[in-house]
Amino acid sequence: MTDLVSKPARPRAAVILAAGQGTRMKSPTPKVLHKLAGRTLTDHAIDAAQNLGCERIVVVVGAHSPQVGESVRKRLGAGSTVIQDPPMGTGHAVLAAKDALADFEGDVVVTYADCPLTTAGVIAPLFQVLAEGADVAVLGFEAADPTGYGRLVLGPDNLLLSIVEEKEADAATKQVKACNSGVMAADRATLFGILADVRNDNAKGEYYLTDVVGLANGRGMTARAAFAPETSVQGVNAQAELAAAEAVWQAARRKALMAEGVTMPAPDTVHLSWDTQIAGGVTIEPFVVFGPGVSVASGAVIKAFSHLEGAVVGEGALIGPYARLRPGAEIGAEAHIGNFVEVKKVKVGAGAKANHLSYLGDGSVGEKANIGAGTIFCNYDGFDKFETHVGKGAFIGSNSALVAPVRVGDGAMTGSGSVITKDVEDGALALGRAEQTVKAGWAAKFRALKQAKKDNKA
Amino acid sequence: MTDLVSKPARPRAAVILAAGQGTRMKSPTPKVLHKLAGRTLTDHAIDAAQNLGCERIVVVVGAHSPQVGESVRKRLGAGSTVIQDPPMGTGHAVLAAKDALADFEGDVVVTYADCPLTTAGVIAPLFQVLAEGADVAVLGFEAADPTGYGRLVLGPDNLLLSIVEEKEADAATKQVKACNSGVMAADRATLFGILADVRNDNAKGEYYLTDVVGLANGRGMTARAAFAPETSVQGVNAQAELAAAEAVWQAARRKALMAEGVTMPAPDTVHLSWDTQIAGGVTIEPFVVFGPGVSVASGAVIKAFSHLEGAVVGEGALIGPYARLRPGAEIGAEAHIGNFVEVKKVKVGAGAKANHLSYLGDGSVGEKANIGAGTIFCNYDGFDKFETHVGKGAFIGSNSALVAPVRVGDGAMTGSGSVITKDVEDGALALGRAEQTVKAGWAAKFRALKQAKKDNKA
Amino acid sequence: MTDLVSKPARPRAAVILAAGQGTRMKSPTPKVLHKLAGRTLTDHAIDAAQNLGCERIVVVVGAHSPQVGESVRKRLGAGSTVIQDPPMGTGHAVLAAKDALADFEGDVVVTYADCPLTTAGVIAPLFQVLAEGADVAVLGFEAADPTGYGRLVLGPDNLLLSIVEEKEADAATKQVKACNSGVMAADRATLFGILADVRNDNAKGEYYLTDVVGLANGRGMTARAAFAPETSVQGVNAQAELAAAEAVWQAARRKALMAEGVTMPAPDTVHLSWDTQIAGGVTIEPFVVFGPGVSVASGAVIKAFSHLEGAVVGEGALIGPYARLRPGAEIGAEAHIGNFVEVKKVKVGAGAKANHLSYLGDGSVGEKANIGAGTIFCNYDGFDKFETHVGKGAFIGSNSALVAPVRVGDGAMTGSGSVITKDVEDGALALGRAEQTVKAGWAAKFRALKQAKKDNKA
Repeated sequence: MTDLVSKPARPRAAVILAAGQGTRMKSPTPKVLHKLAGRTLTDHAIDAAQNLGCERIVVVVGAHSPQVGESVRKRLGAGSTVIQDPPMGTGHAVLAAKDALADFEGDVVVTYADCPLTTAGVIAPLFQVLAEGADVAVLGFEAADPTGYGRLVLGPDNLLLSIVEEKEADAATKQVKACNSGVMAADRATLFGILADVRNDNAKGEYYLTDVVGLANGRGMTARAAFAPETSVQGVNAQAELAAAEAVWQAARRKALMAEGVTMPAPDTVHLSWDTQIAGGVTIEPFVVFGPGVSVASGAVIKAFSHLEGAVVGEGALIGPYARLRPGAEIGAEAHIGNFVEVKKVKVGAGAKANHLSYLGDGSVGEKANIGAGTIFCNYDGFDKFETHVGKGAFIGSNSALVAPVRVGDGAMTGSGSVITKDVEDGALALGRAEQTVKAGWAAKFRALKQAKKDNKA
Repeated sequence: MTDLVSKPARPRAAVILAAGQGTRMKSPTPKVLHKLAGRTLTDHAIDAAQNLGCERIVVVVGAHSPQVGESVRKRLGAGSTVIQDPPMGTGHAVLAAKDALADFEGDVVVTYADCPLTTAGVIAPLFQVLAEGADVAVLGFEAADPTGYGRLVLGPDNLLLSIVEEKEADAATKQVKACNSGVMAADRATLFGILADVRNDNAKGEYYLTDVVGLANGRGMTARAAFAPETSVQGVNAQAELAAAEAVWQAARRKALMAEGVTMPAPDTVHLSWDTQIAGGVTIEPFVVFGPGVSVASGAVIKAFSHLEGAVVGEGALIGPYARLRPGAEIGAEAHIGNFVEVKKVKVGAGAKANHLSYLGDGSVGEKANIGAGTIFCNYDGFDKFETHVGKGAFIGSNSALVAPVRVGDGAMTGSGSVITKDVEDGALALGRAEQTVKAGWAAKFRALKQAKKDNKA
Repeated sequence: MTDLVSKPARPRAAVILAAGQGTRMKSPTPKVLHKLAGRTLTDHAIDAAQNLGCERIVVVVGAHSPQVGESVRKRLGAGSTVIQDPPMGTGHAVLAAKDALADFEGDVVVTYADCPLTTAGVIAPLFQVLAEGADVAVLGFEAADPTGYGRLVLGPDNLLLSIVEEKEADAATKQVKACNSGVMAADRATLFGILADVRNDNAKGEYYLTDVVGLANGRGMTARAAFAPETSVQGVNAQAELAAAEAVWQAARRKALMAEGVTMPAPDTVHLSWDTQIAGGVTIEPFVVFGPGVSVASGAVIKAFSHLEGAVVGEGALIGPYARLRPGAEIGAEAHIGNFVEVKKVKVGAGAKANHLSYLGDGSVGEKANIGAGTIFCNYDGFDKFETHVGKGAFIGSNSALVAPVRVGDGAMTGSGSVITKDVEDGALALGRAEQTVKAGWAAKFRALKQAKKDNKA
């Protein structure tokens, strides 16, 4: 998933704009904390900057959503965010990062926290453009329908003469399909030097980052464009746009997995996370959801309707259908986790089986152990969690409750329907169930009585 | 979902044609009782009429499918249906409603029970056309491929000169893309007056409603068309057409929910019902099915593979994955219903949790109570259902059977693996499980014996 | 599913080429043993040959994947495979089958194990072409984008003048959209006679089957083309191509089922197998997976998230949501199998119900019996499987463990939470659970203690 570049020739920094209100999302969650592929939009933008080798990353946040800054600082540390307040345009937002980068010498790229598909690989050509002598590099895209976008007026070799906004474009310029993504790179001193001259004498009274291009040309500097696919630079401003970006991401990731040898009869029904690792030779059946933190080794089969999160699946393991693996589930080679079985923080040994209607929470299951249908690890007393350990080759009878903390020894067995509250030695049989008693004819009498009552009522 | 109009200026009535055989559906269920978004096609047509403010609704049914009439009368009362027998064309079908509307003064619209996407908003322009002076108003659509449809021959301002059937159309008329949907409106007296003159001197010997246009023009009256999107007036005649209409409906409804602030990473995998209510700020993960009668409050998260029907989900509640909420499930704010848990006719208090492999049927769970994994409310004795009530802050140990009628008091606990048959006082601990006994070495001997037998056989 | 033709006028044989390495699949499984609709690609190709009435089928396999040959011989018997080693082109591969067909008189068709959508119906026109007098018949297709394919240079009446490979095509020939699928038919003697003259004096040093056309024309014979839809002759060389072929197959099969009267509100979310049999009048809800070997009778409803394999569902039965039917599940008419219920090798009688969280493995359930929530058939002792039989009209209390071998009689009942280890007579009540004991105030004290500990730690 990463497209990490080798250490760049010149130092790089990123200014990530994350101050937008995102009101069109109509959500109590700030826009850039919404997730794509199980990861916040902000984190995707930071990933891109890190994968470009940026040694400094400054995220510009708004005063309206303190959670955004908190989320960033949790990952990048204190000093990684600056506040733009009040918002006065994109140029103004970048200027908010000026002091934070005052001691930085190198190239600065401006990116957007709401463009999760703008990966390092998408941005990298801008640095190439700078390395080849341009003073300002702008990322453009060919729009299928350019209406509404700023147009890139280009000379030879993608020389960027100006950026013309839709409302100022004449008929000829409106025909231009090369559009501005907003992503821009320049040497730090150049960028902030020009930004100081940007004016807000426009209808909205805002400072536009795009004005940098005109000012650079006015100073005799060179601006040049590089291009990216349209889908890779789309901003997310509404829930439907987030869903559309997710669809693009998922389709690309599924395609990449298939190219690596993963078999998926219905790839459109497999939902992946940003860090899902699946080896070639794995089969993923229809309707499978991968939350973050999953890796699956070769030869494993993930059957339909399974849900995996924070889990490791070993070679040749058979998961599902309807298996739920939660964080800390480590499923050994050739082990089977079957239908309606939940596993959390349990290491399941090689060749072990838990195939039906069970809850395995906190503990371990030894190699080749067999967990009967309907088994529950009773791991919680309302305050604390306790562990259950089932030994190698042990056999847990169906419909058992193992009351933690408890250990069932290697090769031990427990009778079906038992409540096991004390440790069971290796090789022993433990029972914990009542004797069966029978009342002959009782059911027949009960039914007759019930039926009579019903008949009376009717 | 409704697009209810304010009380109309002139009284309105609807004649809904529902007499078609629907043989192409190849189903024992009558065509118009098939469902779209969990509601019968007939009910969708009635919804449209009611949302238009129709004070009288007459549904014309066939003699072949008495269930259709029964279904309609159950909703609209006696006298809401008339039978067309034998079927002799659409004009004949409308005439079947003549007597039922004999005392009605106002506008009558003719609609079709097999056109579930023809909502009030789609039809409303016809009444506008009448209000502006037309005598007859016809709903048309621009067909991507008009082959097979009746063409609308139009003058200025959508004046409707004639409707020409495909087989009577000359080459020029075949180029016309404006087609007849069949939906028509006129003053009652006008409509039935003209219908009396419609003849059946055609190949099929049927009375066609479309002939009304030519006859109206012949009498010096004015016919005019209004237009609707093609998808909104498609009739359902085969299973694939029903599926196609469902897809159109689902896509539109998902889009509307996203516009209202609902987050859906994979909207195409969320299946909604006609009356599903989801607040902005809710997240719906992939692969979720909403049956009829569900409302979800803001901040709730519906995780993957959940199935909800007739359920109310409170603010910030966490549902699923693999949760099944059935009618009468009322899940409180911040409550959690987890994997492989079924809830039916149970009110779950705020902050309560039932996270694993449980059946909660008939009763209540108090605030902040915790229901252990594998808990079963034993609510049925083969004849009657009984209730289980779990108090506030109570703790039900894992793998418990609560045998209803039974009450577990506030703050009470039950031991794991217990069968609880009698009420438990507030703050008490109840146990109902056998003591554990152990037979040392038994399992090892058993295995040796079994293995020896196997070896003998081999 | 089959498009079996009646016994052909002239004897037919098939040579199926299955020797490709399939390295682009990047999978430890040989390419042609990957599955489409739950059946190997090789078996699809054999199905086509059998449905064409081929009395002899020879599959040419490579030395690199012995599993392919094993799989074929398991189905068709010894002598059904020949090895091509080393691989030297398609002509060479067909020649590998020469001896195996030495005594065969009739027409031979050459097909490909990696083209699972090339069914009998797709191939059949070739035999028609031969019957009408051609010496060699070649299956072509109109390519949307012909780049890379061999082009068919045609005269009148699809007379085939030559096949020109992309790299040898001039500008005019590159415009030709008629392309070669590789499927070819001719009389046995003709085919192998011409193949003997094919040379490998080309860049790759391979013997090409396509050269047969030029040589046939050189001998004054007649070659003629027949045409098939492009999607039907696509080879599978990569995982994404396999997924694409699966999508085409699924879409066609869903459409066919809907045409037969199956109701599917979301057909794109129903995953079928090659032999799935569903009667008209059945409803399949969204998100349902059919593994091989399932038949569903009219009036049954398969609810969302169900997974069926090797199961028979009777008329009017209600399955799911979240039901898993495994091989040997036979569900009687009007029976209900509900959520989180697994059934394997159990015959469930008419009108019986098992609606919640149960495992029914090995045995039978009588008519109108009721299996309570959380019931487990304890069928396995770690070595052998045993059977559980529940009688007609019996009532199994919730959360019961039935320890096989065991029989619960007709009309008998078992108490909730019981472990049933011994047979229960008809009409009797069996209980196997401990008495409830209560410790008043214990829970309250426990909580106070735990809370105090927590407070101390904090």
